[in-house]
Amino acid sequence: MPTIYVNVHLKNEILDPQGKAVFGALHRQGLTELFDVRQGKQFILEIDDEVTAELLQKVEHLSQNLLSNPIIEDYTIEVKNES
Amino acid sequence: MPTIYVNVHLKNEILDPQGKAVFGALHRQGLTELFDVRQGKQFILEIDDEVTAELLQKVEHLSQNLLSNPIIEDYTIEVKNES
Repeated sequence: MPTIYVNVHLKNEILDPQGKAVFGALHRQGLTELFDVRQGKQFILEIDDEVTAELLQKVEHLSQNLLSNPIIEDYTIEVKNES
Repeated sequence: MPTIYVNVHLKNEILDPQGKAVFGALHRQGLTELFDVRQGKQFILEIDDEVTAELLQKVEHLSQNLLSNPIIEDYTIEVKNES
């Protein structure tokens, strides 16, 4: 069954206090190789059908209009065909 | 600069009311090919250094002990080398 991952995170120029808190916590636990952390949301859409160009267009539209706030957030879409 | 994505989501057997709400919203907007939606968190770790096996082991350990609650959540780790 194909799965579409929609990853939504704050734009780089927007302050991400949650990411900063996680950065501090990981760094204190010894992950000193860290440069920055950002925290986002991931929507995992399981699809009952083939992933067509038309379906992807709908997902793109809804990612922009429902799943993210395009004023402050960016999103990426990934399709994986998992059995 | 390499980026490590840690994706955390509720285990399949745990009820995910946020995912169900998003499922309903997307379905009403015409995404009728949907079978299920789960909502998770994504931590985007930017690394200042090479991603070694030792570093990945630290990230694995912290994913289990700090970024997720292993009683109710699963996580996946993805490494991407982005310029």
